[in-house]
Amino acid sequence: MNAIDRPAPPLQVDRWFNTPDAITLESLRGKVVVLEAFQMLCPGCVAHGLPQAARVHATFPRDQVAVIGLHTVFEHHAAMTPVALEAFLHEYRIGFPVGVDRPGTRGPIPQTMEAYAMRGTPTLVLIDAQGRIRHQHFGQVGDLVLGAQIASLVHEAEATSRLPLPADPTEHAPACDGDGCRVEPLRA
Amino acid sequence: MNAIDRPAPPLQVDRWFNTPDAITLESLRGKVVVLEAFQMLCPGCVAHGLPQAARVHATFPRDQVAVIGLHTVFEHHAAMTPVALEAFLHEYRIGFPVGVDRPGTRGPIPQTMEAYAMRGTPTLVLIDAQGRIRHQHFGQVGDLVLGAQIASLVHEAEATSRLPLPADPTEHAPACDGDGCRVEPLRA
Amino acid sequence: MNAIDRPAPPLQVDRWFNTPDAITLESLRGKVVVLEAFQMLCPGCVAHGLPQAARVHATFPRDQVAVIGLHTVFEHHAAMTPVALEAFLHEYRIGFPVGVDRPGTRGPIPQTMEAYAMRGTPTLVLIDAQGRIRHQHFGQVGDLVLGAQIASLVHEAEATSRLPLPADPTEHAPACDGDGCRVEPLRA
Amino acid sequence: MNAIDRPAPPLQVDRWFNTPDAITLESLRGKVVVLEAFQMLCPGCVAHGLPQAARVHATFPRDQVAVIGLHTVFEHHAAMTPVALEAFLHEYRIGFPVGVDRPGTRGPIPQTMEAYAMRGTPTLVLIDAQGRIRHQHFGQVGDLVLGAQIASLVHEAEATSRLPLPADPTEHAPACDGDGCRVEPLRA
Repeated sequence: MNAIDRPAPPLQVDRWFNTPDAITLESLRGKVVVLEAFQMLCPGCVAHGLPQAARVHATFPRDQVAVIGLHTVFEHHAAMTPVALEAFLHEYRIGFPVGVDRPGTRGPIPQTMEAYAMRGTPTLVLIDAQGRIRHQHFGQVGDLVLGAQIASLVHEAEATSRLPLPADPTEHAPACDGDGCRVEPLRA
Repeated sequence: MNAIDRPAPPLQVDRWFNTPDAITLESLRGKVVVLEAFQMLCPGCVAHGLPQAARVHATFPRDQVAVIGLHTVFEHHAAMTPVALEAFLHEYRIGFPVGVDRPGTRGPIPQTMEAYAMRGTPTLVLIDAQGRIRHQHFGQVGDLVLGAQIASLVHEAEATSRLPLPADPTEHAPACDGDGCRVEPLRA
Repeated sequence: MNAIDRPAPPLQVDRWFNTPDAITLESLRGKVVVLEAFQMLCPGCVAHGLPQAARVHATFPRDQVAVIGLHTVFEHHAAMTPVALEAFLHEYRIGFPVGVDRPGTRGPIPQTMEAYAMRGTPTLVLIDAQGRIRHQHFGQVGDLVLGAQIASLVHEAEATSRLPLPADPTEHAPACDGDGCRVEPLRA
Repeated sequence: MNAIDRPAPPLQVDRWFNTPDAITLESLRGKVVVLEAFQMLCPGCVAHGLPQAARVHATFPRDQVAVIGLHTVFEHHAAMTPVALEAFLHEYRIGFPVGVDRPGTRGPIPQTMEAYAMRGTPTLVLIDAQGRIRHQHFGQVGDLVLGAQIASLVHEAEATSRLPLPADPTEHAPACDGDGCRVEPLRA
């Protein structure tokens, strides 16, 4: 996890699922955005990241918190095509909007993933109501911590003034052994 | 769950574990209090309620959130004695303070449990920094909702002014079938 | 589950993974065969069927029990191609041989799946040392029952004589609600 | 686990629950006996051992496999009394017969536990139809292995002749870290 505070780069997405219109972060100003970056063949995403994003989607009011999936394919590109993703979203009953991250021009890492400096999948990014990255979790993060972080950002948004966030006492280095998918080997 | 707003009744406790001194709610003013009412032989408490309370204890800063266990024995009184509780707390490595609810004078339900009108165990009560009951969950509540509720109360406390809490969108009637322990049969 | 007793139809497979040579049931005579039919985008296969097959593969001696995966794609054919399957097997670290069921000529159901009259995925087929289908489980089956059934067939094989199998006391109608994938709608 | 082969010592039990009559191993000759030794305040027993014993009880025919619980209290004797055990069995809905191991005369370890040289709880002992100890698992054992071992002993019993048991390929040293309860410290 990095507790950070910089403008969230725009989503570089050519194709969207589960939404009639393309989504921009600008259009979500005023809401807390939970951005779940995943790959459909990443076991940690399927077992942990996506179900957690679905719980967030089901738990928080839609006018306060927006959940967005981002398919950040950085390996097995021939397998994880948009056609395959569409079937995956259907079979796993993912109901929130999912965008396909635009392929990189110089390597396997797609453009949004690169702009956010994500280390692999799953990565959960929390963006505040003013469009700033506030937390970026690679691997697993507990529901208790995530619920608290989202609620804190919602409170900030409601106060329309910046309050200090409590320090996160439980963050550890990513421990996603087998089932997380790290970027590093590709960057080396 | 009841979203409520009334002064939290005092804890009627004769004996404490895991704390050198008796604890009063007054002494915790300024902190959010998570009160976990349980019975050591209640399966739902052992499987869900107590591990969740331990996660809260491990996650939130101790100067902001206090976790208190309350042994509210309303059945099998001869089995769930303080001696048995002490062994239980040791074996299950419960590290937060636990008080023994004072036996009722007119029936099986102990006095604090009665004062809070708890329906059974586990019951998790959230008390705000000013000593008011704000949420009371009977049965299971998810970590995402609980984390958000705690963070909201922490934000309130920091703002030292009362902010409106978001409505809870995910509460359902208690679904604790076999493993929750309801009071009702005893009240009938 | 059907407790049955008929010759296991041959595997109609054009392509194999995790094995240098094609596998035939004839070549496995003398061993108990655990045939795990799955689709890579079937949630119940990913969450239950394949991990169970991997446990069987890790638990029983390879000279007594052979575990074979069969990719029986009957929906989303454009998504679940052999290229996608290869990436899936790599990411999920499936170590046992997996064959791609040959596409059907008259409909979406592939040929081996049709010959076994499978109702959907996951389906686990137990074939005895003489090449007969002895159990066919659609949906989830518990490890306790499965371990017992495999051991019974191993004992039979060792005795080189047919012993009566104990009746299975715990089989129920498949209860694979959301995460099993049934064939029926396609057959209708 | 020890794969062993010696006569099972008699059960030294003064008090039984869930059975109208005292049970002896002699009376169970002809059946495979699954003996689950536990302590009601042992977390590994509550989370793993007893639920597994209940699954065995629900899965195998009662005329072939007998499941017996044995309350082998070797610590916290004042907490885990028969009165407390009775409440525990009720709350956890344990349906199979449970005996209270007779207290030791020279130390904390009760007599049957001593006679079986159990190392702690939970310990699952498999006794064949002729009354011999065949497997003794301390800590957790998987359902797949256990189902296979039970089925093997049932087959032996049916053949009324001794067949060689397959070697167990998956046994490891007990890995019951926090939640198993070892005897060793007490023996030291």
